[in-house]
Parts: sequence; C-alpha cells; structure tokens
Amino acid sequence: MAGGIGSRFWPISRNARPKQFLDILGTGKSFIRHTFERFAPIVPAENFLVVTNRVYRDLVLEQIPEIKECQVLCEPVGRNTAPCIAYAAFRLMSVNPEADMIVTPSDHLILNEAEFVHAIDEAMEFVRSHNVLMTIGIRPTRPDTGYGYIQVDGEQDNNTGAIHRVKTFTEKPNIELARAFVESGEFVWNAGIFLWKAAGILEAMRTMLPEMYQQFAAISDCYGTSRESECIERVYSECRSISIDFGVMEKAENVYVRCSDFGWSDIGTWGSLYSYSKKDDHGNVVRGEGMFYDTHDSIVMMPEGKLAVIEGLNDYIVVDSGNVLMICPKKNEQNIKKFIDDAKFHKGERYT
Amino acid sequence: MAGGIGSRFWPISRNARPKQFLDILGTGKSFIRHTFERFAPIVPAENFLVVTNRVYRDLVLEQIPEIKECQVLCEPVGRNTAPCIAYAAFRLMSVNPEADMIVTPSDHLILNEAEFVHAIDEAMEFVRSHNVLMTIGIRPTRPDTGYGYIQVDGEQDNNTGAIHRVKTFTEKPNIELARAFVESGEFVWNAGIFLWKAAGILEAMRTMLPEMYQQFAAISDCYGTSRESECIERVYSECRSISIDFGVMEKAENVYVRCSDFGWSDIGTWGSLYSYSKKDDHGNVVRGEGMFYDTHDSIVMMPEGKLAVIEGLNDYIVVDSGNVLMICPKKNEQNIKKFIDDAKFHKGERYT
Repeated sequence: MAGGIGSRFWPISRNARPKQFLDILGTGKSFIRHTFERFAPIVPAENFLVVTNRVYRDLVLEQIPEIKECQVLCEPVGRNTAPCIAYAAFRLMSVNPEADMIVTPSDHLILNEAEFVHAIDEAMEFVRSHNVLMTIGIRPTRPDTGYGYIQVDGEQDNNTGAIHRVKTFTEKPNIELARAFVESGEFVWNAGIFLWKAAGILEAMRTMLPEMYQQFAAISDCYGTSRESECIERVYSECRSISIDFGVMEKAENVYVRCSDFGWSDIGTWGSLYSYSKKDDHGNVVRGEGMFYDTHDSIVMMPEGKLAVIEGLNDYIVVDSGNVLMICPKKNEQNIKKFIDDAKFHKGERYT
Repeated sequence: MAGGIGSRFWPISRNARPKQFLDILGTGKSFIRHTFERFAPIVPAENFLVVTNRVYRDLVLEQIPEIKECQVLCEPVGRNTAPCIAYAAFRLMSVNPEADMIVTPSDHLILNEAEFVHAIDEAMEFVRSHNVLMTIGIRPTRPDTGYGYIQVDGEQDNNTGAIHRVKTFTEKPNIELARAFVESGEFVWNAGIFLWKAAGILEAMRTMLPEMYQQFAAISDCYGTSRESECIERVYSECRSISIDFGVMEKAENVYVRCSDFGWSDIGTWGSLYSYSKKDDHGNVVRGEGMFYDTHDSIVMMPEGKLAVIEGLNDYIVVDSGNVLMICPKKNEQNIKKFIDDAKFHKGERYT
C-alpha cells in the first residue's frame, strides 16, 4: 500500500513526492525501497503488487525497477485501505484463486529484518493451515497515543506460540488508556500488516462490506485486462472510503495476531522521527550541515549543501525543503495539517 | 566608498556580494545605486569616483552603468577610510587641482533626498568660501550606541546657520553617555559624509598622516596612467589601516559640521533594518512570503518564491539566503561575526 501523501512530514513530503518515496531517515533508500527489500527474500519480485495513486506510478517504478508496470495498481483517488485491499485481492484471485496475500504499508521503519521475516513466516504458516485473518502486533515499549492497539486473548496456547486470537481492535487511545493498555500486558500495537488467503479476505468482505464487495466483484472480468483501469475508475468513483480495520478486522470472528518485537515504528510524525534518530551531545537531530548555539532537543532537516546556523531554539522542528521553510515547536507538530491548509488557502497549491 | 563587506548582514551579504550591492530594504535598488541617484542631480556622472576592492569592480559597473571603468578605483586590500580618501583625492588632483570633493559611504539609508541635497549644497558652498573640512551631522532622535557622535560648538553664528565648528569627535558611546549626549543638545551623529577641497584634505593629511601622505604623493606621476594599478598595489601593501576620523578629523582645527535632519541610518545591523522597516500587526518585518503563528517582533528574510511557516518565535532574526539558513534571537545579533568565523573555520569558505 503506497497511496498516502504523508502530510505530517510536510514540507519535506509533498503531494508530488510523499513520504513512502522519501529517505526521511537518511538511510540512503526510500521507505518503499526498504519495504521491497525486506520482503524480497520471501516473495518473488513478480508476485509484488503495489497499490498507489496513479500520479505516483512512475515513482513506484523508479524505486522498484524489479517490478513490471502491470504490478502497479493505480487508484484514481484514495479511498482508505479497504478498497485498496479489495482491488489487490481481486487482481490476485484473477491470477491464482489459491493465492496467499501479505498486506503492508510502505512507509514504516523496521529495525530487525531477520526477526521480521521470522514473524511473517510463522504468521503465513498459520494462515495456510487455518482459515484466519492474521495481523502483526508489536509488543508496546511505551504508552504511545499515536497508534491503534489490539487486545489479545490472554489464554496462552502452546500450539500457536506468539500467535493469539484477537479480542478487540481499538482506535488511538488517550494517554491514561494507553498506560492502562501497556500495564495490562494484554495489548499490542497494530502495525497495519495483514496476512490471509486472498479468498479469505474477500469472503470476509462479502459478509462485512457487501456493497463494496459487489462493486469490485462486478468487474471480475476486467482484472488483468486492458479494461481494468477504466473499470477501477468507475468503482472508485462510487465506493465508500473505509479502513480494513474498521470495515472488517474489528467485526470478523477469525482474527489472529502474531505478537512481535522486531523494532517497529510507523515514523508518523517529526516527533517519532526525532525519537528514532541519533542525537548529538545536545539532543539535536540534524540532517545536513549545522552549527548550533544554545540549541537543544531540536530536529533540523536541511537540504544538501545548505548550512543551518541556529541560536536559541529548544525543542523545535526546523525543516528547510524546496520552496518552504518551516519552524515550529516540537510539541505543536499536530499544527502541520493546519499549516498545509493555510498555505493552500492563502498561498496556493505550489507549497503543498 | 564601496569597499566594505557588510558582514553584519550575513548570510544575505557575502564576500562575493556585500551589503552596498544588495537591496536589503526591498526598495528595488541596491544601496550603491540609491547613493549614485541621490548625488546625480548635483554631480555629473563623469565626476564620480568609486573606491572599492578590486573584486567588486564589475559589481560597481553593473550597478552604475553611467560611469566608466577608469572611474572605479580598485583597492587590492581594505585599509579603512584614510587610504581610500587619499587615493581618491590624489586621483582628483591629477585631473583638477582645484577639485571640490564629497566623500560618502555607499550603503546608508537617506529618507528625505531633497533635504539631503539642500544640506550638501549648503555645506559645499561653505567649503568653497572657507578653508575647512566639513562633515555632515545628524540630529539624534535616540541615544543610539551604534554611532559615533560629534560635539558642536554651542555658539550660534547667524552667518553659518546649521553649520558649526566641531569641538570633538567621539567613538561609539555606552548607553549612559549616549543619553547624556542627546540630552545636552550639543551632539550630532557622525554620518561619515565629508566635503572639502581635494587639496584641503591632502594638506591636512600631509600634516597629520605624513607617512601615508608621502606614500601616495610618491606615485603622483602614476594617477590616471596605465601604471596606477601597480603603484597602488605597492602603496597599499605598505600603508597603515586607519580611519579618516581618527587620522585627521579628530585632530584638525578647521573642522565644521552641517547639522541635518534628512532621515538617516547606516542600516548597520539586522536590528536597525528592523527599526526602519514596516511591521505587520504583530510587529514582524517580513521580506517574501510568510505565515506566522504565535510569532512577534521578528524579522524574516526569505528568498523569492519561498514560503516561511513559523510558529512560536518572538524577537528572532530568520534569514534564508543562498546556502545558509540563520536563526538567532534579535538581541544576540552581535554573534553573527562569530557565526561567520565558525562557519569559515568548521565548514569552509563556501558559506562566507
């Protein structure tokens, strides 16, 4: 899934090049490239499907030259994860009705790739031997209020190890609730990674999102043909926008979670990027050249070849990117969406 | 005089393009262009001489296409104002031993040009009828500690009007002294503008800076010839660095000042630029596009086409220029010289 615009990393992420195509962590590779390489040992290149907005098609092919054009499924418009997954599942079914399916965001950080592959293998093995919808849960290390949580069934089952039946999915909690979740030991973070048979998720959608299922099923003849794009255009113009979590996972009975510890973050905000980045002696995270005076605990992102000279900023975000300079206290990073709206309204599209 | 590097406006002013060649006030014209146009009604274009560092010769000719190459006097190295003035005076003498001479900085702001021309006319008239060294004084509007002051002789003379004999020149005072100066009514700001006969200032230098006088006099045959550049190179390599104020004006007996009110500032710092600029409702001075949240009394300079989005800065300087972004509290602007030194030392010449 590579359709988002990652507006929380504005002004580095823009409509024209959103987060999944950027190297925000400074690793030398974009998030989507890391995601491809993470799965490459267990999934042949010809089996990848990337669902994205059609305006990002060339960016996907540029980042993953190993795949063919027909493996990039283009959405005319974003409709959240349920239509995205329905589209990919129907396309898979048209090729192989027995297909296994792994669904993953393309803009997350995973530190321990070996442990990740182990978790995926184990979860996939469980999917193959049971008729279940699997998700990947991350054992929480702090009461983060930026993630959804999954409550696992407390009963340990020696046959399933780290795999548990799911009791509930929850939305992002407030801090008190998040603390209670973490203390209880019953909750894991929802990493947004799913494993199932393509037929299995479609069967669940047929029951729980029947209208959407019918819309995508009605164009069954089109998948993999020259008419696919035109049919998908029509379906997307009609179908509702809903997440797979809310539309299916929270309601289905046969949902399991593989609890894991592979070092995961959705790197969803400047603050989480700050947390996961190496700091200098004054707690500053700096990309590019900088000279700092009386400046602490700030994150500064400069373009290549440009020098930041900063005095007297504590706990700030400073981002110089393209035609925008943003300076904002770290604690107010939620205002970035407002900045983007204001920029669009007052200054026009060229800054968003 | 156009040889300075204006480092206090770094990172906008750079070695490659110092303040006098910039439009820091956003008027549409550089300081040196304004200076030329201010004098153009009273001085024919062919009578201008611009003394500058040789690396700025082309910038001068670009800004003042009305003058010829031979009117740009190139210094191989900066040696403060006394050698600069000696060079220009000897060159003038080689053309016309009776020449009047007006000396002016090229990077100051003057608001009332009509009143300025009136003051210059009156001062020049006085020079022509008396054997004096004239300077222009500005009646102070505040106890500024960034300027030198001139104490005028209190005795009013109906024959000379706003023109007074000078009692003393003073260096930049501390704030208590500056307050006493302003309250006394006897002091004016030293604008660094001088009027005299070329022969008159050289006569004064012969007495008060005899070594320097001899150095420039020794190459009398060279002025205006193809050997001038090579001779000047040798003289500058040997002569001392000293201001005309300290070397001559503070010691000479026949020094007068024309007290004036034409709205003057040397715009020597970001703070003085802030003072002289139009502010928005929150006291911010903004060049370029900006969106501000909880931000007051700051000065923000952006390049064309770039948007500043700033939250939570009060009393700051933010300058985005070329390959440098500087953020600094207004009250610490004196640190800019340190920033430049550090940038040079740690990051190399490319940022200075």
